[in-house]
Amino acid sequence: MTKPTDLEIARLAVPLPITEIGKKIGLSAQQLYHYGPHIAKIQGTFPDQSLGGKTQPQGHLILVTAMNPTPAGEGKTTVTVGLGDALSKIGKKTCITLREPSLGPVFGMKGGAAGGGYSQVIPMEDLNLHFTGDIHAVATAHNLLSALIDNRLYRRMEPRLHIKKVYWKRVMDMNDRSLRSMVCGLGAGGGTPRETGFDIAVASEVMAILCLAEGPEDLTRRLANIIVGMDESGNLVRARDFQAQGAMASLLHRALLPNLVQTLEHTPVIVHGGPFANIAHGTNSMAAIKTALSRADYVVTEAGFGADLGAEKFLDIVSRKGGIWPSAGVIVGTLRAVKMHGGVAKADLAKANSQAIRRGSANLLAHAENLTQVYGLPVVIALNRFPSDSREELDLLAQIIREAGYPVQEADVWARGGGGGTGLAEQVVQVCKKQSPRYLYDLETPVEEKISAIARRIYGAGRVDLSDSARKTIEICKSEGLDTLPVCMAKTQYSLSADPNLLGRPRGFDLPVREIRISAGAGFLVALTGDIMTMPGLPKHPAAEGIMLDGENRIHGLF
Amino acid sequence: MTKPTDLEIARLAVPLPITEIGKKIGLSAQQLYHYGPHIAKIQGTFPDQSLGGKTQPQGHLILVTAMNPTPAGEGKTTVTVGLGDALSKIGKKTCITLREPSLGPVFGMKGGAAGGGYSQVIPMEDLNLHFTGDIHAVATAHNLLSALIDNRLYRRMEPRLHIKKVYWKRVMDMNDRSLRSMVCGLGAGGGTPRETGFDIAVASEVMAILCLAEGPEDLTRRLANIIVGMDESGNLVRARDFQAQGAMASLLHRALLPNLVQTLEHTPVIVHGGPFANIAHGTNSMAAIKTALSRADYVVTEAGFGADLGAEKFLDIVSRKGGIWPSAGVIVGTLRAVKMHGGVAKADLAKANSQAIRRGSANLLAHAENLTQVYGLPVVIALNRFPSDSREELDLLAQIIREAGYPVQEADVWARGGGGGTGLAEQVVQVCKKQSPRYLYDLETPVEEKISAIARRIYGAGRVDLSDSARKTIEICKSEGLDTLPVCMAKTQYSLSADPNLLGRPRGFDLPVREIRISAGAGFLVALTGDIMTMPGLPKHPAAEGIMLDGENRIHGLF
Repeated sequence: MTKPTDLEIARLAVPLPITEIGKKIGLSAQQLYHYGPHIAKIQGTFPDQSLGGKTQPQGHLILVTAMNPTPAGEGKTTVTVGLGDALSKIGKKTCITLREPSLGPVFGMKGGAAGGGYSQVIPMEDLNLHFTGDIHAVATAHNLLSALIDNRLYRRMEPRLHIKKVYWKRVMDMNDRSLRSMVCGLGAGGGTPRETGFDIAVASEVMAILCLAEGPEDLTRRLANIIVGMDESGNLVRARDFQAQGAMASLLHRALLPNLVQTLEHTPVIVHGGPFANIAHGTNSMAAIKTALSRADYVVTEAGFGADLGAEKFLDIVSRKGGIWPSAGVIVGTLRAVKMHGGVAKADLAKANSQAIRRGSANLLAHAENLTQVYGLPVVIALNRFPSDSREELDLLAQIIREAGYPVQEADVWARGGGGGTGLAEQVVQVCKKQSPRYLYDLETPVEEKISAIARRIYGAGRVDLSDSARKTIEICKSEGLDTLPVCMAKTQYSLSADPNLLGRPRGFDLPVREIRISAGAGFLVALTGDIMTMPGLPKHPAAEGIMLDGENRIHGLF
Repeated sequence: MTKPTDLEIARLAVPLPITEIGKKIGLSAQQLYHYGPHIAKIQGTFPDQSLGGKTQPQGHLILVTAMNPTPAGEGKTTVTVGLGDALSKIGKKTCITLREPSLGPVFGMKGGAAGGGYSQVIPMEDLNLHFTGDIHAVATAHNLLSALIDNRLYRRMEPRLHIKKVYWKRVMDMNDRSLRSMVCGLGAGGGTPRETGFDIAVASEVMAILCLAEGPEDLTRRLANIIVGMDESGNLVRARDFQAQGAMASLLHRALLPNLVQTLEHTPVIVHGGPFANIAHGTNSMAAIKTALSRADYVVTEAGFGADLGAEKFLDIVSRKGGIWPSAGVIVGTLRAVKMHGGVAKADLAKANSQAIRRGSANLLAHAENLTQVYGLPVVIALNRFPSDSREELDLLAQIIREAGYPVQEADVWARGGGGGTGLAEQVVQVCKKQSPRYLYDLETPVEEKISAIARRIYGAGRVDLSDSARKTIEICKSEGLDTLPVCMAKTQYSLSADPNLLGRPRGFDLPVREIRISAGAGFLVALTGDIMTMPGLPKHPAAEGIMLDGENRIHGLF
C-alpha cells in the first residue's frame, strides 16, 4: 500500500459544517459569511462592529516558533495544527491561527501550506488555491496604487508631484523571476518608461497593513501613509497624494475579515493574512489572533521562519502593537535540522552521529535561551518526529535539552494527529503563564541601537555594519518623525547570522545592514541584511506540472 | 433632494436569501455553494455532473444587443435587467445571464457594470469588486502559464523547446497602460530579457475558454491547446508543451461554476465570465446560458458592443458551439446615439433635430435588418429612455422604426425598474419563436471568405484588405488544420466600419485586417481591424479617487 498523500488524507476527512465549528468558539450563524459549507469569514470582527460583548482577549496565547530550519522546513505548521488538536483532545477550548498560503510555493517547490499528514487544515484544496481571495485582494489594492502612480507620471497633471524616485513596485501571487526587474511604460502612448519590477504578492506592504489593521478606518489611515517614492525636493510621496487609500481599502473590505476553517479533527482554525516573513513580520493577522483570544482559552499561533526572526518580530512588533503577549513559546526542532547545524551534509543525515547532535543542539538552545532570558517566556521544545528518525538519537537530543534546563516533548502529530501531541499539549498547559510584556528595546531608542540590540542579543552578532544608504534612511526617519517605529529585520532564515552557511550557534560575527526601507503604513522600518528575495523563481520541475483536474472537477497532485 | 446613486438604490433594496432565488429556477439548497447570503455558485452545472435530470435547454433565449453606441454606452445591461424584471412581472419564469465586471472600468472611467437605476443586479459592491474571484482565477491561470514559459526559457532545460517567438503575454485586472509594453527578465538571475507586456485580465484567452468550456475535461483540453509561441522550426508551441493545463484548470475549478445573484426585484441572474468584447466573443459563459435555459422559460442575455460585433459573434460562434439559438433579438437604441449617428456633436444633443434622427436611425435599422434578414431572428427595438429625452423626438424615432417594419417599445427601466418595461416584455413574448439556426457562413468556407461575409453582409463593407501578416497566419491555419474555426472579429464598437468616426450607415468602405491571431484553445481565429486596445489606461481623474470605506466597513463612491 502506498502512503496516502496529504490531499488524499484531507479528502478522507468528513468536515463538520462551518457553523458547528463557529459554535465551538461562540460564533453565531449570523456572524459567519460563508464561502461554501466549510469556510466562512467572521463578521463583526473589530471592536466598533461589536464582538458580541467579548472584546477582551482572555485566552492563553501560545507562540509556535522554530530553530533555524533546513530548506525543507521543520514542520512548524504541522506542529501548530497538531498541538491545537492535542489541546482540544485534552479538553481545552482551543483555536489555532495561521497564515494564508501564497500560490507561489504551491506551484513552485514547497507545495501547500496547511500542515501535513494527520495534522492538517481542511479544505486543503481551497486553502491552497485562492481560498477566500484575500491575497488577490491585496495584490489588486497594491497594483491599483501602482497604476495610479504611473498614470500621474504619464499625465503630468496638477497637482504636479514632481516625482523623482518611485519605490513602489507591482505584485503578483506567483513565483515568476522574470518579473523581478523590468522596464515598463514602453511603446507609443504606453506611459513613461522606467525601471521597476514585481514582488510576490505576500511581500506587499499592503499585506503587512492588512495584518496589523485594527478596523476599516485604521486600514485606510495606514494605506494613506504608505511611502511610494520621493519628489525632486526630497520630500516623501505617499499613497494619499494619489487619493488611493479609499479605493484600496474598499478592495480590502472583505479581506479584512478573518477566515474560519477547521483541522481534520475539527478544531477551529482562523487562517488570515500572510505577510512574507522575508520582508515583513510574517504572522497571521492581529484580527485573527484577537478574535481567537476573545473566544478560546488556548490560542496556538505560528510565526514565520526561526525564532530569531519570527518570534522576535512577533514579540517586539506585533505583540507591542496589539497589546497582547504570549503565555508560552513552543520551539520546534527536528533531528534533521539539529544534525545539519552540527555540520552533517544532507546526504549523510540518515547516519548516526551523536557528535553532530551535541554540536547542532546549540542552535536549538540559542532560541530557547532568547525566549526565556530576553523575553521572559516559558518555553517548551517540541521535537517534530519524522518516520526515519532513530529512537536513540531522539532520546539523546531530548536528554541534551533537558540537561540545558528546558522542558521537551516529542510531537508525533504528522503520523498520528492530535493523539501524537497530547504530551506536548499537557506540558504547554503546565508552563502557560500570563505576564506583562518584556520587549527587547524601547521604541524611543535610536534606530541604530534597536538594530544593534536585535543583532547582539538575539542573533549573537559582534557588531552591526550599516551601509551609507542605511544611515541616510535613518536620517530621513529622524527628520520625518519615523524613528520611533520598531525594526523589522529581513535576514536569511537558515542561520542566526546573515550568512545562510554559518550554521550552529555562531557568535561575534558582523551583521551587515545594506538598506533600510520605511514601511510607514505597516508601521515599521525594514532592515535588509544580505540579499533578500522578494520575488522567488520556479524550480527546474515546478509542482504545477503534476497538478490536474478530473472530470468530476476534483483536483489531484496538490501536496 | 439629490438623485440617489446606483449604489444608494442598491443599498435600499432588501435582497432575498439566495436559496429563495435558487428555488425560483428549481435549484435546491445543495446545489448552491454560498458566498455570503446573497451570492452562490451553482454546483452540478455540467452534464456529467447531473443537472437534476433537466439537462435540455428548453426556454426561450432572448439576445439583447444594440446599435453602435456612444462612448457613454446605451444602457444595454440596464435594459437587459429591466426586461428580465418586466418578464417576471408579467408572470414569466425568467432568468437573466450577464458578464462579470472587470475591475479596470470600475476604477477607471466607466464605473460598475451591474445595470443602473432601478434595473440593477445586487449586491452591487460585490459584483463590482472581486465578486466570487473568477477573474482573479483567470488571471492567475494565465500568469502561471507565463511563468512556466519564462522558467523554461531561463533554464534552457530538456525537453528543449527552442522557442523563438512568445506570443503569450501576462494579464492583470487593472487599467494600467504602463504595463502594455515592457522588457522583462532584466537583472542578474532575473531570467531571459525579452519584450512582452500585459493585457487586461478579461482579454485573456483563458477567459474566453472558461466561457466556452463544457466541463472540467473540455476546459483542460482547451487550455492544453493554447498556442503560446513558435519554435525555431516554425512549429507552434502550445500550453501542453509546458504541462501547464492541469494546474491552470485546477486554478479554475470553482470559476467554472456559474454565479447566481438577483435583481433589485428578485429575478434570478446568472453572472458568469466576462470575455473582452474587443478581442474575444464578449458574452457570458455557455454554462450560464445553458443552466438558465434548462431552468427558466425566458432567458435574457446580453452580447457586448453593438449587434455588428456582439450579436454576430454570439450567433456565429457561441450559438454554433453550444447548439443553442435565440428565439428573439432585442436591439437597444437611444435618442442620443441616433442623433450622434445623424451627425450631431455631443454638445448639441439636447437640441431638437428631426433631420438628425432620420439620418441616424439608419444605424439602428441596419442592425435590425442584419438580425432579421441574415439570421432570421424576430427582433424588437427597445428605445432606452433617458430623463432628458423629448417626447416628440422619441415619438418620431418610434414612428420611423415602425415605418421600417420593426416592432418598437420604449424601455423606461432605469427610472422605473421592471414596471417600465412591461410593454417591451409583452412585445418580446409575442415575437419569440423557436427555430433552427441560420449561420452567416459555413465553417468549411475558406477563412478569407468568412471574414468577407461578415464584412460585406453585416458591416456593409465593399472589400476586405488583408495584410501580409494576416495572409501568412491564414496559411499556418490551413497547414495546422485550424482553418475550419469560426472568425472572431476585433473591430471598433463605435462604427459599422473599422473607423470609429464613420457614423450612421456607411457602405462600400474597405475593411483592413492587419493581423490574425489563433485562439486555438477558445476555438476561434481573431481578425484584428485597426488598432485594438487590450490594455486600457486610466483617465485623468480615475474613479478610484472617489471611492472610500467607512468605519462600518461599507463602501462609498462606487457608481
